[in-house]
Amino acid sequence: MRRGTLRSSVPLGRGGEFDLIRAMLAELPDPAPEARVRIGPGDDCAVLEAGGDPWAVTVDMSVEDVHFRRAWLDPEEIGWRASTGALSDLAAVAAEPVAVLVALAMPVPDASPEWVKAVTRGAAAAASSVGAVVVGGDLTRSSGPVVIDVAALGRAPHPVLREGSRPGDDLWVTGLLGAAGAAVRAWESGTSPLEAHRRAFARPVPRVAEARWLAGTGAVRTLVDLSDGLAGDTGHLAAASRCGAVLDEAAIPVAPGVADAAGGWAEGLRLALSAGEDYELCLAVEPGGLTMAASEFQARFGIPLTRVGRIVEGDGVLLERADGSGVCGLDGGYSHFGKGTG
Amino acid sequence: MRRGTLRSSVPLGRGGEFDLIRAMLAELPDPAPEARVRIGPGDDCAVLEAGGDPWAVTVDMSVEDVHFRRAWLDPEEIGWRASTGALSDLAAVAAEPVAVLVALAMPVPDASPEWVKAVTRGAAAAASSVGAVVVGGDLTRSSGPVVIDVAALGRAPHPVLREGSRPGDDLWVTGLLGAAGAAVRAWESGTSPLEAHRRAFARPVPRVAEARWLAGTGAVRTLVDLSDGLAGDTGHLAAASRCGAVLDEAAIPVAPGVADAAGGWAEGLRLALSAGEDYELCLAVEPGGLTMAASEFQARFGIPLTRVGRIVEGDGVLLERADGSGVCGLDGGYSHFGKGTG
Repeated sequence: MRRGTLRSSVPLGRGGEFDLIRAMLAELPDPAPEARVRIGPGDDCAVLEAGGDPWAVTVDMSVEDVHFRRAWLDPEEIGWRASTGALSDLAAVAAEPVAVLVALAMPVPDASPEWVKAVTRGAAAAASSVGAVVVGGDLTRSSGPVVIDVAALGRAPHPVLREGSRPGDDLWVTGLLGAAGAAVRAWESGTSPLEAHRRAFARPVPRVAEARWLAGTGAVRTLVDLSDGLAGDTGHLAAASRCGAVLDEAAIPVAPGVADAAGGWAEGLRLALSAGEDYELCLAVEPGGLTMAASEFQARFGIPLTRVGRIVEGDGVLLERADGSGVCGLDGGYSHFGKGTG
Repeated sequence: MRRGTLRSSVPLGRGGEFDLIRAMLAELPDPAPEARVRIGPGDDCAVLEAGGDPWAVTVDMSVEDVHFRRAWLDPEEIGWRASTGALSDLAAVAAEPVAVLVALAMPVPDASPEWVKAVTRGAAAAASSVGAVVVGGDLTRSSGPVVIDVAALGRAPHPVLREGSRPGDDLWVTGLLGAAGAAVRAWESGTSPLEAHRRAFARPVPRVAEARWLAGTGAVRTLVDLSDGLAGDTGHLAAASRCGAVLDEAAIPVAPGVADAAGGWAEGLRLALSAGEDYELCLAVEPGGLTMAASEFQARFGIPLTRVGRIVEGDGVLLERADGSGVCGLDGGYSHFGKGTG
């Protein structure tokens, strides 16, 4: 939904936000000749050579009233969620999280020690849940909304990238989609979300263990986390591999209650496809490669692993309907810059 | 002036801002038992074990109207300055910069590709000036001021910390102080700063080469960069070593024109002591340790290296006047949370 990681060598999917990111990237020297930088801008994380195992590093910025509202989340949840945004990027390259740094800008009248402590506690708890620790940060006042930027670092002995999918690969997704989007939809329409939807938004689980297990099967060719929504992130993954993707409408694992909460099946599906920040994983796998492992995954992690589509020649993302018709142009995803600014 | 790096094991100097940071730190588990974290919260950078050389990592957040104004700086300068804030932290542990990540939040109506490109260009130029590259970042809209958070990583085979000064150590400072503060003072009083002062604020030089050369002499016991001002940062350095410090008023290297621009010698001295963001280095050195090397330093780097005081038993920072009298309580530095919020 919200991520705008800088990308240069790796193409991005469509959307006004990504045009702006492309503008940033055009200013960067290509780090490819730089021996210490294995992966520069263009994936969920950069990967640096470090003598021993390579390191994956990422930053993820959350802004009040763009990514969350203080009326929706308590400060611990704000910290947890911001931290998870960065940790999920580490999951998206199958890295092992080691450390996070938390930078916090906040309006002065609200900068109570209790509030700051609670945000810190939440960020540290999310880090701790995947074996990482908070090793530093920054704290400043602001005249504007709360801004939290979390940098996360992890070891990445065998990083799984976005580039390298091939036509014919299966697309799989972890977990259930749309619950976080349904919570936002409820809040924005003045009602209360279901507790399960609220929790999906407030306490998303960084899929670190899942990503490392999946990478360990040897069948995963490419990997991305869902921060822009399944359609948008599938678009990034496909574009990075200079391919297109087809999603099978009937296979999308919409979370329970999302269709009801959204007022119907079509809107529930829309949330599952394009509301971001489920922080699940989407992966391209050699044909048939995970079929045998899916039930073991579900038994081990308690969440489904669902085949949702395939990589194809071409570009863009097509949604294939049960009746065989298709909907194109899904991969714009959600742009928080809106139309016309890119 | 502005940095609020999280610190836990290492004591901080005085000031309301640092009370708030202490509140954050109280929420963090002690990373000391964590073998992968050599230095946790508490210094200019965290230091992580990486198999080969350890890595230093830091984040530095800049907020419009707190750390800069768009009326003062062009977007390239905003990017340069934000990047330098983090790179200067790497200098402060004598690390060799490798990579930076730039996260940018900005108001939508102003989020033009040209503006974003120019900020990116400036951040990349500062990184490049010390041998690092931009390897990633994030981009988001905001309803509030521009916020830039820069994460910087570098190799730190022999990190120089804040802790370890001993009573009797000499305190040295690189460069000339107060010019950036004089520029801010001019802008805030509605006049134009001298070009040299403007440049000191807009294009500060990360003292990476200087720090590594100084560390290479083997005489440097502790090191800090000046982001809170000489008095405040000397206070942090002394507090981290459970010592006090005495600064010699007559020795403070006030930059040319600062006293005139500030309307007098006393105010010029105040800027040199407490206006932050000169991004120079302050170091504690074994007694007499750098005396022979100072002229070589000046010849090599084209900036002075000045002995400004000494580490003493006790705590706090005392300014020693030429007449032998002293002024205490200097080490509160500049707090951008103001009084009463801590």
